[in-house]
Amino acid sequence: MKYPSGVNKTYEKVKNYSNRGMTLESDINNSNEFYLLNNIAVIYKKPTPITINKVDYKSRYDAKITEAYFKTPSTTDYNGIYKGYYIDFEAKETNSLTSFPLNNIHNHQIDHLKKIYNHGGIGFIIVRFNKLNETYILMVEDLINFLNNEDRKSIPIDYFKKYGYLLKENFNPRIDYLKAIDERICKYGKS
Amino acid sequence: MKYPSGVNKTYEKVKNYSNRGMTLESDINNSNEFYLLNNIAVIYKKPTPITINKVDYKSRYDAKITEAYFKTPSTTDYNGIYKGYYIDFEAKETNSLTSFPLNNIHNHQIDHLKKIYNHGGIGFIIVRFNKLNETYILMVEDLINFLNNEDRKSIPIDYFKKYGYLLKENFNPRIDYLKAIDERICKYGKS
Repeated sequence: MKYPSGVNKTYEKVKNYSNRGMTLESDINNSNEFYLLNNIAVIYKKPTPITINKVDYKSRYDAKITEAYFKTPSTTDYNGIYKGYYIDFEAKETNSLTSFPLNNIHNHQIDHLKKIYNHGGIGFIIVRFNKLNETYILMVEDLINFLNNEDRKSIPIDYFKKYGYLLKENFNPRIDYLKAIDERICKYGKS
Repeated sequence: MKYPSGVNKTYEKVKNYSNRGMTLESDINNSNEFYLLNNIAVIYKKPTPITINKVDYKSRYDAKITEAYFKTPSTTDYNGIYKGYYIDFEAKETNSLTSFPLNNIHNHQIDHLKKIYNHGGIGFIIVRFNKLNETYILMVEDLINFLNNEDRKSIPIDYFKKYGYLLKENFNPRIDYLKAIDERICKYGKS
């Protein structure tokens, strides 16, 4: 595998914890760990946003949250930096065989990705079709094109095949999604 | 106030909520809202990282977290994008009159900021000296210089005065910290 420097390197492997499933989220977390360990990129999943109502302070260092609620996220789940670019994305799984239902992504998350694009960042969604075992990246500019030109409430898989990038599953990293970003940068340059 | 385009604009004002204190965090959140509303930058505070142990599912849409614990954050509190640059920082207050104690920032947060710098991002800390009512930005490169050359466990305020930027308090945004970033970009360019 060749990375920017053009030198074949030996990469640090990411530990596999047995309690991890093979969900899209765990695959992305695994890939992000790989990128971090090998000094390729710094990308993290954001913590789940919650509203904390009650906290029990047993001691100064032992606080227990006893009442909290999940909040609707205002942004996407993942962001970070790669080759100086700001990276921002959301990852979703679907059991549909034919299309990705848009109600899987909040409108304000799409708005957020548009803003990222307008400010010169790289925004995208990663969608896994569970039953087909296929995972695609779709850049925000192609997502916007779809939304501007279609009234449909779901994106057909053919649109992903045509405008997206199929992500192959590997061992380390499990899905090398930054490779698709490299291709994109090479092909179209940056906004 | 002049922004990149060189055009004097009328800016959207950020609502002031009465339940907000004038803490550094609320000042930064206010500024980030201002930047977002006026299409200047997209910068958010990350949610507090917690480990969720128990959740009561009363109904599908009404989940109550009944047991959770605070986690040590692996990154900083704020990140986002400005003029295409990846922005990443941590904000801290101190009651000291003379120096900023380094035990206010976790080592892995400093390591994280170093990585951001190495990947071409803009990393910094914002430190408020509460009793002096002075708030400074210190870029990660100057923070690293201090750590490499000094054995002290706190950064004297004179170091902030010499290498940092004093942030004046305004009404909208409350602290215009991106102005200091502009100055920095103009002066030294980007890594």
